[in-house]
Formats: sequence, C-alpha cells, structure tokens
Amino acid sequence: MSLSRRNLLGLDGMSAGEITTILDTAENLKEISYRPIRKVPTLRGKTIVHFFYEASTRTRTSFELAAKRLSADTVSLSASTSSLTKGETLIDTAKNLLAMSPDCIVIRHSQSGAPHLLAKHIPISIINAGDGAHEHPTQGLLDMLTIRQAKGRLDGLKVSIIGDITHSRVARSDLIGLNTMGSEVTFYGPRTLIPPAVESLGAKVAGSMEEAVADADVIIMLRVQQERLTDVLFPTLREYAQRFGLGMKEMKAAKKDVVVMHPGPINRGVEMSPEVADGPWSVILDQVANGVAVRMALLYLLIGPEAA
Amino acid sequence: MSLSRRNLLGLDGMSAGEITTILDTAENLKEISYRPIRKVPTLRGKTIVHFFYEASTRTRTSFELAAKRLSADTVSLSASTSSLTKGETLIDTAKNLLAMSPDCIVIRHSQSGAPHLLAKHIPISIINAGDGAHEHPTQGLLDMLTIRQAKGRLDGLKVSIIGDITHSRVARSDLIGLNTMGSEVTFYGPRTLIPPAVESLGAKVAGSMEEAVADADVIIMLRVQQERLTDVLFPTLREYAQRFGLGMKEMKAAKKDVVVMHPGPINRGVEMSPEVADGPWSVILDQVANGVAVRMALLYLLIGPEAA
Amino acid sequence: MSLSRRNLLGLDGMSAGEITTILDTAENLKEISYRPIRKVPTLRGKTIVHFFYEASTRTRTSFELAAKRLSADTVSLSASTSSLTKGETLIDTAKNLLAMSPDCIVIRHSQSGAPHLLAKHIPISIINAGDGAHEHPTQGLLDMLTIRQAKGRLDGLKVSIIGDITHSRVARSDLIGLNTMGSEVTFYGPRTLIPPAVESLGAKVAGSMEEAVADADVIIMLRVQQERLTDVLFPTLREYAQRFGLGMKEMKAAKKDVVVMHPGPINRGVEMSPEVADGPWSVILDQVANGVAVRMALLYLLIGPEAA
Repeated sequence: MSLSRRNLLGLDGMSAGEITTILDTAENLKEISYRPIRKVPTLRGKTIVHFFYEASTRTRTSFELAAKRLSADTVSLSASTSSLTKGETLIDTAKNLLAMSPDCIVIRHSQSGAPHLLAKHIPISIINAGDGAHEHPTQGLLDMLTIRQAKGRLDGLKVSIIGDITHSRVARSDLIGLNTMGSEVTFYGPRTLIPPAVESLGAKVAGSMEEAVADADVIIMLRVQQERLTDVLFPTLREYAQRFGLGMKEMKAAKKDVVVMHPGPINRGVEMSPEVADGPWSVILDQVANGVAVRMALLYLLIGPEAA
Repeated sequence: MSLSRRNLLGLDGMSAGEITTILDTAENLKEISYRPIRKVPTLRGKTIVHFFYEASTRTRTSFELAAKRLSADTVSLSASTSSLTKGETLIDTAKNLLAMSPDCIVIRHSQSGAPHLLAKHIPISIINAGDGAHEHPTQGLLDMLTIRQAKGRLDGLKVSIIGDITHSRVARSDLIGLNTMGSEVTFYGPRTLIPPAVESLGAKVAGSMEEAVADADVIIMLRVQQERLTDVLFPTLREYAQRFGLGMKEMKAAKKDVVVMHPGPINRGVEMSPEVADGPWSVILDQVANGVAVRMALLYLLIGPEAA
Repeated sequence: MSLSRRNLLGLDGMSAGEITTILDTAENLKEISYRPIRKVPTLRGKTIVHFFYEASTRTRTSFELAAKRLSADTVSLSASTSSLTKGETLIDTAKNLLAMSPDCIVIRHSQSGAPHLLAKHIPISIINAGDGAHEHPTQGLLDMLTIRQAKGRLDGLKVSIIGDITHSRVARSDLIGLNTMGSEVTFYGPRTLIPPAVESLGAKVAGSMEEAVADADVIIMLRVQQERLTDVLFPTLREYAQRFGLGMKEMKAAKKDVVVMHPGPINRGVEMSPEVADGPWSVILDQVANGVAVRMALLYLLIGPEAA
C-alpha cells in the first residue's frame, strides 16, 4: 500500500481511498505492538523531529513509540526548552531543522496553519500533530480506526460529537473525515461553543442532549477546557456536567450498541460519569492503542521504503 | 536466575532469597558497563516508560542508562511536561500508557503508594523509583549491593543511618532490606526528625552522634532538605553540620574499616565534611555505579527473557 | 585520521594540523546525513551524556543527531530538570555521571572554564558545547568548515565579525581558530561591546561598518541579545539595526564573492535584513548542516575506534 502524498497536514482534501489506505496499514502494523519483540527495522536510519510548540505528553509519547517500534530515531524539541524560536520565524526554525537532514517533522503548534506553512517551505514530510483550533488529523484517523473496528464500517453511521465544538480541532478533523467516509456528524454543546453556520460544513446541530444521544451509533465527548467555561454563562463544572455530561441516564436512552469515545484526558464526572467512562460501550483505550498504530502507519507510508 | 514477581514496589515483603537473586544478577550484569561496547541485545524491542511526577535527574538517568545498556527503548514523561495528568486520575493516566503497550513503567511519585495503585490496576511490570516518604527500593538494593561488595556479606552488620529519618524513603527501604538480610539498623538525627515508635519497625535509635558512629560497620548519611530544617528548632545548616554532620572527629572514633555512604547529591560541609566524602572509607561513587547495575538487574529479571 | 587528545575544550592551543584533521573527518562523515539510511554503526554501545546547564535546543539537537547517526546512545540532562546540581559542586556531579560509565560528556555551562574543570577531574572525553563568554569550539569548527567549503581555503582570508564581541564565545573561538589557520579577523560593533586591548589577541578593530565590510571575504554577524542593548546607550533594536546591521547598502559595498554567516537564531531586520539573510552570499544553513558533521567528526575522533 502506498500514499501519493508527502505530508499529513489535515483530513481536508483527503479522499476516502487515502483514508482507507492509512487505516488498513494501521491495522496491519498494529500487531507489532503486541509481539514479544515490539520492533521492526523498517525505518532504521530515519530521523523524526517532534517539534511541539504546545505541551502534549499523550500525543508526543504516542508518536515517539510509533517511531521507535519502526526503529526510527527521534529528537524531541519543545517550545519551553527551545531557544530555536527566540525571535526567529517559524520558517527559519524549520529551515534550520531541515539543514540537519531529518526525514520527517511532526509539529504541534497553537497557530492554525503552521504545519501548512512549513510544508510550503521545506521539502520533507510534515505531520500535523494539532494546529490551533484547525485540525488534528492523526486524532481523526485514530477515531475512525476505532469506529471502524467497533462498527465494522465507516459509512452510514450517525456520530454525535458533544462539548466545546468551537475550539476543538478534534471535532473538525472528525467531521471532515467522517463526512468523507459517508457518515453523518451531529454536534451538540453549549450554544456559545457551537460555531455559527456549522451546517454549511456538513454537520447537523442537535437541539438537546436527548436528541444528540438518541440515534447515535457513536458518541464522542470532547474535553472541557475549564478556562473556557467563562465564555458559557454558567460558572461551574458541575453545571456543565449536568447539562452536557454523559451519564447513565443518557446511556439508557441511547442505542444498545452505541460506542462512547473521548480524546482524553477525561475529566471524570464532567464530560462523563465514571460508570460511562468504564462501561462496556467505552472504546476510549482502543483509541489510545489505535493512536500508536495510526502514527506507525503514517510514518511508514510517508517516509518508509514505499513512500512517494 | 529468575524472580517470581512482576513488580518491584518495595522491599517490604521481599525475601532474603529474592534480594540475593537481584544482587547476584546485578553483579553479573555490572561488567557490561565497563566493556568497550556497553550494550547487550537482551531487551531489544522492549519499551520502558519513565514516569516521573517528581524531578530526579540522578535516578532517571541511572534507569535510562540501565535500559539502554540492555537495548530497551525508553520514553520519558515528567509531570511538568505532562498534560496526561491534567485533571486525570493516576489510574486513567496509567491505563492510557498501558494502551500504548509498553513493557514496564518506572514511576516516581510524591504520594506514598502510587506505584502500588498502578500495579493493582495494570498488568505490566511496575518499578517504584521512589514514592513519597514510603519506599525507594532500588536505592535500598544498590545500597545493599554496595555494602555486600565492601563487607563481603549482608548479615550481622551494624548500619547507622543519620539525618532526617522521618521524611526519608531511603532510610525506610534500607531498614527493611537490611533487617531482612540479618543486619541491625540504628537511626540518629534531630529528635523531631526521628519518627516515633521507630523501634517497632526494627530499628534502634542512638542517643548521640558518638553512639551512632561508635560500633557501626556502615554509616549512611542522609541528604538534608534545607526547607525542612525549620522543623528542627535550629535555623542554620552550620548548626546542623556541627551536631549531625560527619567530620574527621567522628571518623577517628569510628571503626577502622567503617564505610561511609550517601544517596546523593551531597551537601559538602553539611552532612559530611569534604575530607570524609573523599576519604578511603567513602563508597559513595560505588553506590552510583551499582545503581545502574541494580536497575539493569531488575529490568532483566522483571521483563527479560526469563521473567515470570 | 586520528587526534592525539581526549577532549575538545577549546580551539585555544589546537594546532592547524588538528583543526584540519577534524574538518577533513567532518567532510568525510557529512555524506552520511544524505544517505537513505542515515546511520552507521561506528559508535554502537557508546553512551554520550549531554549536560546542558544553559538551554540550547539548536546545539543540543545537533549533537544528538550527530550521536544518533553514529549509533551512539544519548542521555540528556538539563539544569532545569536537574536535581543533580542541587547544592552539589560541578565536580561531584561530574563524578556521579562518571560512575555511570558514559564515554563522553558534552557540557554547556554559563561559567567560563567549567569544561576544563571537568576534564581535570574525570578521565573520559569532555566536549565543550559553550562555556560562558569563553569558547564555543564546535561553533568555531563548523564556521571554519563552512568557510573552507565556500572559499576553498582557510588561510589568507579577511574575516569580519560584527556585533556584541565582548559577550560572544563564538567570536572568541572563531578568532582563535581563524588566526591559527592563517586568516585575519576584524571585529566591529558598538564600542562598549568590543573588549579593550582586543588587538593583543590577534584581532583588528574596524572604525566603521564600511571599513568592516569593505575588504572582507567573510562576514560573520553575531546575534544580538536584546537584554544587553541597555549597555549600549541606544535603546532600540531599530537603532542597532541601522548602525550595526547588514543591509543591501552594505552588501553593495562588499566584495562580489563575500559570504555571510550567522550562528543563529537570526533576528531578521536586526543583525541583517531578510534580503541579506536569504541572498546568494548566505551560507547560514550550510553552517547548520556542517554543525552536525563537525560534531560527528569529534565524537568519531574522540571516542571512536581509532581514538587516542
């Protein structure tokens, strides 16, 4: 399997065939993580720079493990330890990194479009590990892999995404990817945290928690950033939990075979109750495991022996 | 040699036979660190997560080198860079790490019992790299290896541990391990920094520095945490040094073949004078070297080819 | 090729022959970074400790990549995460590291002479990655490699170094190295940032920007540390740029084949205009690429199979 692109900047513009190639590759590579020797020599001698302007242990660790399972070398830079960025433009920084000849730069940045800017100026593989409120394509892919494993398909599903939609790059990448694969996405959350005219992007908006949950095949709960709750007129996490959290009451009204997802880390008792997080419908830890597999697949497809 | 356990949570409950197996394995593996090529392929394809909620360069570096000398891959997370922990319980964090399928988690945490909690919930090897004021079992093991090398045995010895006993997980692990091996431990320090009823744990308490030093085969000086001196009624390091520091005067009253230890980093002129730290009785740097060997042994025994 | 020394502490005292050996080795090893598999097994089983008391992503990343391309293992300590240094002397810290038996310590420290102190006390290879305002020998070497590639030689050249000379370890190492190789160095910058009696060190001082630029074969612009501009009587970066920055006006007065260098990161519009930074005379990114090559060469010569 191969992919005729050098970068993964977003799911926007990616075809269903490309997404399927990535998910199939991830499924093939996943078993490496369960062998006694969890390592193959595929990317030996390749160097991957993890360049994180925003802290993210979870995603960075997932990328690092993916790289190591394929025998790639990794170097990790973070904004906090980085003098690279002192007064230097992002492009200068990237050109400097490029001059050290890595094979791939994985970048997380608080500015939307930062990975695209990089890709325009430097001729090696760029992977977007989250840019501002724009996209988080590897999360979108691992979510789709998890849904495909749970549901056996990615088309004709109803997926509800609940929480702070406006600030969520996960919601955006999920929406784009799932629409491409033929599923229907419904958003729900505090009215001030749903972007206006979201229907034009291909999403429905539910009018109530009941409606959001009722027909869903998949429910994706988004993480609450406490500092943003001030935008929402009610001041407490508890109030948020009551109106937008997923509890056993909601689960009883949901479809029998619904699956529940969350990009993590969970605020237990806020986005969902502990019973929901740990119930049989929860595929949250499958998401984490699939995260490593999807990132292995991308590294393999973008800089591996059969890369474009 | 093998060990019929999956975790190293503490020396409490560990048999003399188990301790001896670990120390013997450490002694066998130690020479790897002195070869021209300081690496064996034993743990190739194994992944070790170093999860440090408390900063510790010394211990983390020792663990990392131990892992690399056995060809394991390592990923290092620290609380300061960790978004994993944001509002997430320790168990959720651990389950997330587990979903990425590492082989072993080495954890340091300011809460006593954190490694035990982890071990209860996740089915891979957990190594306690220090939990609160509870235990620091790898330090206890490296101390015992150092004593065994210096004295030829671990039974029938008198070991004095001097300093802030109350807050010291090193003192606790040393006490438990040395008692198990048949040696006698005496504590000495500022009265407010000796826990009450410590005799019930198997330790003696000396009444004076002279008494603590007099018959000791081994003297272990504990590091002073300056911020805790306020608990001790006298305000200066200098006063502490005069009353609880090890100087040449004390060394003259000590046994000819006494050895002096310290878990590091030393405050020279506080816990001991420079002459003592650098004298022929000092095995402080042997402790550091043995630290790598003991950690190699544990990784080998817990996740190596012959692991339980 | 081999080098009859164990350490790289500075360019001071290094012969032209030694410098040539390092640059020739770097040139030989450089192509490894452009292979499909960017890795050779030369330093397998060697451990390099990167001990950075001062933050430096750029230099640390360059050293890490150099080590990995030669298959060495690396452990990275930084002052901010380091409890090693708590109240401990540098020598104690170094002896502790030594007890873990690495093969080489790469140290950056804010104190001039710190690497020399280490080298005096511990018997493994020490590489100075920048000490205070003293030396930055790997930068000096990569600058010389870049000049040699651009100009075909290192003797008989006129090299102008412009900016804050007083606080620049780059300026010092460049001066020493270039003098040794037979080139002439001219300094220019704010009068308060040129050390007194610099002529006695072998440098000329230009009286004006015009003079500094006029005959130069190579112009090296130094990075402005904004916090030091207060020493210079004029308060703004803009004023600095007008009087000491390299713009198109200066380039027109320069030699046709002049090359422009900068140790990075550039403050665009301060030390030089964007047109200058990106012009055909700029070899700034060659410096970065040569940095990896020079560091590979040093590791190879100091701890490789043919090391002294």
